[in-house]
Amino acid sequence: MNYRVEKDSLGERKVPEHAYYGVQTVRAMENFQVTGIPISHYPLHIEALACIKQAAALANLELGILDPEIADAIMAACREVREGKLNDQFVVDVIQGGAGTSVNMNANEVIANRALELLGHAKGEYGFCHPNNHVNLSQSTNDVYPTSLRITAIWKIRELVRSMGDLVDALACKGEEFADVLKMGRTQLQDAVPMTLGQEFTAWAVTVGEDIDRVQECRKLLMEINMGATAIGTGINTVPAYAAFVCEKLAHITGLPLTKSPNLVEATSDTGAFVQLSGVFKRVAVKLSKICNDLRLLSSGPYAGLGEINLPPRQPGSSIMPGKVNPVIPEMVNQVCFQAIGNDLTVTMAAEAGQLELNVFEPIIAFNLFQTMDMLLRAMRILKDRCIVGITANRERCAQMVRMSAGIVTVLVPYLGYDEAAAIAKEAAMTGKTVYDLVLEKGLMTMEELEDALDPMKMTHPRMVRGTRR
Amino acid sequence: MNYRVEKDSLGERKVPEHAYYGVQTVRAMENFQVTGIPISHYPLHIEALACIKQAAALANLELGILDPEIADAIMAACREVREGKLNDQFVVDVIQGGAGTSVNMNANEVIANRALELLGHAKGEYGFCHPNNHVNLSQSTNDVYPTSLRITAIWKIRELVRSMGDLVDALACKGEEFADVLKMGRTQLQDAVPMTLGQEFTAWAVTVGEDIDRVQECRKLLMEINMGATAIGTGINTVPAYAAFVCEKLAHITGLPLTKSPNLVEATSDTGAFVQLSGVFKRVAVKLSKICNDLRLLSSGPYAGLGEINLPPRQPGSSIMPGKVNPVIPEMVNQVCFQAIGNDLTVTMAAEAGQLELNVFEPIIAFNLFQTMDMLLRAMRILKDRCIVGITANRERCAQMVRMSAGIVTVLVPYLGYDEAAAIAKEAAMTGKTVYDLVLEKGLMTMEELEDALDPMKMTHPRMVRGTRR
Amino acid sequence: MNYRVEKDSLGERKVPEHAYYGVQTVRAMENFQVTGIPISHYPLHIEALACIKQAAALANLELGILDPEIADAIMAACREVREGKLNDQFVVDVIQGGAGTSVNMNANEVIANRALELLGHAKGEYGFCHPNNHVNLSQSTNDVYPTSLRITAIWKIRELVRSMGDLVDALACKGEEFADVLKMGRTQLQDAVPMTLGQEFTAWAVTVGEDIDRVQECRKLLMEINMGATAIGTGINTVPAYAAFVCEKLAHITGLPLTKSPNLVEATSDTGAFVQLSGVFKRVAVKLSKICNDLRLLSSGPYAGLGEINLPPRQPGSSIMPGKVNPVIPEMVNQVCFQAIGNDLTVTMAAEAGQLELNVFEPIIAFNLFQTMDMLLRAMRILKDRCIVGITANRERCAQMVRMSAGIVTVLVPYLGYDEAAAIAKEAAMTGKTVYDLVLEKGLMTMEELEDALDPMKMTHPRMVRGTRR
Amino acid sequence: MNYRVEKDSLGERKVPEHAYYGVQTVRAMENFQVTGIPISHYPLHIEALACIKQAAALANLELGILDPEIADAIMAACREVREGKLNDQFVVDVIQGGAGTSVNMNANEVIANRALELLGHAKGEYGFCHPNNHVNLSQSTNDVYPTSLRITAIWKIRELVRSMGDLVDALACKGEEFADVLKMGRTQLQDAVPMTLGQEFTAWAVTVGEDIDRVQECRKLLMEINMGATAIGTGINTVPAYAAFVCEKLAHITGLPLTKSPNLVEATSDTGAFVQLSGVFKRVAVKLSKICNDLRLLSSGPYAGLGEINLPPRQPGSSIMPGKVNPVIPEMVNQVCFQAIGNDLTVTMAAEAGQLELNVFEPIIAFNLFQTMDMLLRAMRILKDRCIVGITANRERCAQMVRMSAGIVTVLVPYLGYDEAAAIAKEAAMTGKTVYDLVLEKGLMTMEELEDALDPMKMTHPRMVRGTRR
Repeated sequence: MNYRVEKDSLGERKVPEHAYYGVQTVRAMENFQVTGIPISHYPLHIEALACIKQAAALANLELGILDPEIADAIMAACREVREGKLNDQFVVDVIQGGAGTSVNMNANEVIANRALELLGHAKGEYGFCHPNNHVNLSQSTNDVYPTSLRITAIWKIRELVRSMGDLVDALACKGEEFADVLKMGRTQLQDAVPMTLGQEFTAWAVTVGEDIDRVQECRKLLMEINMGATAIGTGINTVPAYAAFVCEKLAHITGLPLTKSPNLVEATSDTGAFVQLSGVFKRVAVKLSKICNDLRLLSSGPYAGLGEINLPPRQPGSSIMPGKVNPVIPEMVNQVCFQAIGNDLTVTMAAEAGQLELNVFEPIIAFNLFQTMDMLLRAMRILKDRCIVGITANRERCAQMVRMSAGIVTVLVPYLGYDEAAAIAKEAAMTGKTVYDLVLEKGLMTMEELEDALDPMKMTHPRMVRGTRR
Repeated sequence: MNYRVEKDSLGERKVPEHAYYGVQTVRAMENFQVTGIPISHYPLHIEALACIKQAAALANLELGILDPEIADAIMAACREVREGKLNDQFVVDVIQGGAGTSVNMNANEVIANRALELLGHAKGEYGFCHPNNHVNLSQSTNDVYPTSLRITAIWKIRELVRSMGDLVDALACKGEEFADVLKMGRTQLQDAVPMTLGQEFTAWAVTVGEDIDRVQECRKLLMEINMGATAIGTGINTVPAYAAFVCEKLAHITGLPLTKSPNLVEATSDTGAFVQLSGVFKRVAVKLSKICNDLRLLSSGPYAGLGEINLPPRQPGSSIMPGKVNPVIPEMVNQVCFQAIGNDLTVTMAAEAGQLELNVFEPIIAFNLFQTMDMLLRAMRILKDRCIVGITANRERCAQMVRMSAGIVTVLVPYLGYDEAAAIAKEAAMTGKTVYDLVLEKGLMTMEELEDALDPMKMTHPRMVRGTRR
Repeated sequence: MNYRVEKDSLGERKVPEHAYYGVQTVRAMENFQVTGIPISHYPLHIEALACIKQAAALANLELGILDPEIADAIMAACREVREGKLNDQFVVDVIQGGAGTSVNMNANEVIANRALELLGHAKGEYGFCHPNNHVNLSQSTNDVYPTSLRITAIWKIRELVRSMGDLVDALACKGEEFADVLKMGRTQLQDAVPMTLGQEFTAWAVTVGEDIDRVQECRKLLMEINMGATAIGTGINTVPAYAAFVCEKLAHITGLPLTKSPNLVEATSDTGAFVQLSGVFKRVAVKLSKICNDLRLLSSGPYAGLGEINLPPRQPGSSIMPGKVNPVIPEMVNQVCFQAIGNDLTVTMAAEAGQLELNVFEPIIAFNLFQTMDMLLRAMRILKDRCIVGITANRERCAQMVRMSAGIVTVLVPYLGYDEAAAIAKEAAMTGKTVYDLVLEKGLMTMEELEDALDPMKMTHPRMVRGTRR
Repeated sequence: MNYRVEKDSLGERKVPEHAYYGVQTVRAMENFQVTGIPISHYPLHIEALACIKQAAALANLELGILDPEIADAIMAACREVREGKLNDQFVVDVIQGGAGTSVNMNANEVIANRALELLGHAKGEYGFCHPNNHVNLSQSTNDVYPTSLRITAIWKIRELVRSMGDLVDALACKGEEFADVLKMGRTQLQDAVPMTLGQEFTAWAVTVGEDIDRVQECRKLLMEINMGATAIGTGINTVPAYAAFVCEKLAHITGLPLTKSPNLVEATSDTGAFVQLSGVFKRVAVKLSKICNDLRLLSSGPYAGLGEINLPPRQPGSSIMPGKVNPVIPEMVNQVCFQAIGNDLTVTMAAEAGQLELNVFEPIIAFNLFQTMDMLLRAMRILKDRCIVGITANRERCAQMVRMSAGIVTVLVPYLGYDEAAAIAKEAAMTGKTVYDLVLEKGLMTMEELEDALDPMKMTHPRMVRGTRR
């Protein structure tokens, strides 16, 4: 392999001739062989970095502090990076020390070298376009990197919300389909009172729908960026107009309503928005996991379980038990949720460990947030496509459990009072007689009253009680 | 001790004659000797329960399903409970099984027995006013209990926000006081570029201030309640108008803008609002802990540390080292933050474990949320009163570190370019010469240019650079 | 109230005349109003502190560096504290800054003042017996406090292990009682193959039994103490023989095989043993929670659930649903487990945050470990007493589910091969015919072969297969 | 692309002609597009699976229940898989539902098809060698999969322990190198008493060394495997001798002292060993993170920090601040530790969520454990190679801080008593005079006494005190 030699303040390093990255990226590759996953694993992140570099070049150009020819070359190179043409040049490991400096320098070097080519120079001739002096002009890792995380997250949330919306629709649709499937509701896994299967699915739709609102609120928090802060928020080495200017350019380039943080010192060290976002994903995971737990419970069986619903079979369930089919899709989703919750803890610890003017642990925050978002959005898409839409109900079994259950005695409380109703329930359990028969036998209600009271469909909504208000 | 005998569906139990609670509370006391902390440890929770019972009685009365005399007695008893007069009767352990049923029944029994007295009957004569048939009329633990948690949390947030606001004010005040204290900013614990100590304190004020907004947003989510849901959200044993009606009454009694959840089935099993709230407290804890870490760093020393600020001494710091004084207040706050973060995990696990129509683990959610809120609000109050307001700055030491540091070379990048500036920094480190001397020695800038560039106060804000834009 | 005035390096404070604690304890009370729970809430901790102070006095006496008369008075005071006579004097909040200094000084002051009385002096006349110079002689908070936590934990583990052992016995006993109750085993909540209910209970006994071993291993780690380390492990202000000497005395007083840490510098800052211990409690909690989840699943119903077992009813289950009985004991245990897991996170964060020569956050570690141990031991005791021993089996229902299930087709794989067996299972599911009838109908096996193969009790153990090895 | 058609109980699927995997693997690929990371990302896991399949074939052969020709082909195929020749055929996503069934079937299919080739048949001609009937004979996912995780973990631990051992050696070596570098010890970030830098590094060596012991203890727990359990631990479809036999074969093939679990029902559902292992990794992470925090603190500066040690520079530290060098290696390690701690939570939640006879969430447990082990072992290797071995001490700065500090007053307590020493310390702080001068000035000690007492090197160990024992 052919090499060029590049130099930085620590000395010289060979860089592969074909490489657009430079000496600092090489050092980062030597230092951080941790996961084997390069930052290009998250292409939206590379795109975000390029948008930022383009916005900075434009702002610097218009403020008259960057040579127009160099600025044009930088911006052209940025456009190529945004299109993904140089993705394979973003080689730094997702976990690195240095608060993202290696990521920022990887971007600066790739863009500088591509710009040099566009200007007719060889890679490495940084006198004509320098990674720090020109590409990184008016910037620092400490404003570029967190801003790039925010933009990436905003874009990913867009996809995530689409997945969530589709899942809500599928659940709501099933809610309508099952609106007349009567079943026992259960509290604490014990027979409670009747409801419809449709009410259950609709509740899931509503609960995921609420999460969309929470995610969207968080998305707004991410719109505040700290471009112009440079090293520690004081804006050192920027001109006074720059901060507002670069934010405006970046908003234009990305099409997002980004705004400059009111306090750049605070914004540079603060990871609160990421903690909040991760916390909301934890909430999403908690609810999604609960729904999948319920799906697995309701479809348990086929004989020795609740057996109220059937999930569409997706693969043979066992290497030893023929004919067994398992709820593999919800099981996968549960695991994704556990990962999201674990990742939230990693984010939390990294956020808490930030010191003074900077949080140096943002790379692990980024890795965990990105992984969580990707996993959740795929898991929800799969859950919808390969599970929810194919669910069917075992109507007869559901109905039978309502008929058999003593839980319906609850509806007699307005007529008999709690204590007498409890005595009936107890007697039913011990004798095997039905509540219906016992009430008639004891002459506590007329058959007409009783049949009206015990009409199960009427139990699934409030209604005028003709009871005696004891 | 004298006893009366009460009976429920499981049989008889002796109840102390003086007790306002009844048989079900006695059973709960037998079953749950877990923490030794009774629910009355959180008096606002008892007050919230009483508000709910009063609202329900009023709604039932106006809907004509509760006898006016009984309703009046119940409401009078509720008012006494709200005033704290019967707090010692709320004896159930904060951790119990049963999804809060023991808490709800503790309230039902205390109110029923007090109402009986007001009606001129003896305690236990439930024929005249029954814990379930009258006090709990149109209600279930499954709507009463979560609603009581929401109201308690709303009230506690009010206090918490006051603590936070006071802390913000104190930090902002110090920000102004220290506005002219020049110091080195640090990133990754390494010397970065100058800033003022005032900027640092102001940033903390801003960051806590943002948390107030997040907490307030959560407070709004809590305003949606599920009264009228009864057992599983279908409103069984309520009349159609009741749900809206009782929410309205409860809003009036508490003075809070409470509203009925649009989907009561969802609202009855969902703990999303608590997860969100706990997640926001985790965010508050993360930031507060970070601030306290910084306070401890900046006040480290007095000789062998950073020594930029002095915390007011609060107690001798050592049993063996005379004269040592430790940052005990921030240390205490750190620990409170760790507890809040651990408690958030408990809340998360409890929320995820909810099944089907109910989350049976709400008592542990309540215990952890209440503990977190109480601890955080006290910790912030103490932090402000016993630490922040007494902080002083070591101006001279701060200034000296700026003078000695090579970090100021950054400001020369616009004049010299990154590579030359790096070479200067390196030479300074190796030779012990100052950046100032080296630049002059090499004739890179005029003394006038250099003095202007290196004016430290100017480094703490953006400014027009007269550099050569390399 | 009458006061005496005491003085420390920060100045004077009034101390209630009757109080055995002194000025430093008063300051700690002013500084740390966090939880309202005093350290005397954990009396074993106070006892451990007194053992340490007694051992140190004895070592100092025998080494000739403590006046015999003073030593005797101190040791007499320590014995009173060990007996709990002065528990109400240990008033510091369980959460404090200062790495336990306030706790150590609370002990030093109480012991000094009681010793003063025994010597015929008034409280506060520290010239005759000084909290620091005499009671704390050759000690520092940094060796006394962690040692006291270790001893307390060791003692609590003894109780915890007793609770665990009793639970194991109760589960094993039920395992024998249910050895002949045939039921369907379930994997992934789907019908798998037959087993006995006894196998299920026995497995739980085994799994809790293994945890006892893990807890005991941890107990051993706690036996290494850092007495003699004083401030940072260098043993400053101790004489060379002291460290080994005081450990020996303490081992004698407590009856525990305590040994001196081989590296006192490491031992003074390290909280690894607490992290390990907390991690093992997390493991205990994970398994215990899993068992309780299973108990709740197997007892679900009574009609619309699995209904394989009945938990003894402990209290009415609902304020609205008469006759409902809930699995309140396992529900309580689940919540305790969630708390233990959350507390482990608090311990983890506190341990990670230790800096340089000391972990200042040991008080929150202590609080969480003590709470976890107390809760777990009570929860297991209640689980055994109020749930496990009263469990009964629904033999007929269990047997019927085995008869109805197609899961038994697994046993035919050695005869028919996986694919044919899967086809039979599928046909059974679609036609409602039994596996038995289908196999005979198709002439795949003789009736004799089939009956032997399908004998359910034989399916619960390995056996010689007479199949055709396809 | 050419395809063959394979069939399972759910119907037909096209399989790429060249593929060794079969229809069930294809279904798994369709179902689980979650992370994009295939199980072959952990090649040791594939090797472990192949060892198990080989051991089972051998056991079946010797027990006379598997045709010798088929057995030989299977074992030959297994050897190829162990050598990594078919790694690219292990394509299932690391996160899947189904409790590892897709992983087990991926192995069964690859081995069956390779065995078919070796037997002279075409892929897919399963009549001659069937994934379930022959390769999986006497096995179930539920014994194969957890056993494969245990073996993989055991192997990884071997590497991890090597990394840890090297780190211990490097730290111990520095401990010796710095044995005579006197410095201030710090507790609570405040100046405490003198120690040597060597004591600090040695303490780190000791603390990591203890972790090796804990990891090795866990390794032993993993040696107990549940082969022979098949579906739920009852050993269905195995012959009585098989379980012990296959464990013996597997021990032989792997060279590991594997033993059969005493209770296979327990062993099949229990994930306690993984929880324990993960908990120990958490402990390792906590300590390692603490050490890295300390390294970053001690190397903070160069001017405005503690500056006691210098980490070897590894890359330029800033895109804007020339000459800045950051502690990037410890920063990377910290992040790995946060990930390990977050992963532990994921493992914990997955373990707690297991139900009845199986824990279906083992795939996420495996993914997190494997990731944690790989990250930790790489991080420790990098920490040693690229950081620890190159650390140098700033002797003069360390010494100066000892000279300047009032912390040395502690050593005067045996001479002056705590209160007088505290007064001296306070006066020194207020007047700027040294402790030395003040003591002489006040005539409290002779110069000879004082110089002996204040000899800093003597302060780093216990010694005979000539003080007056007040």
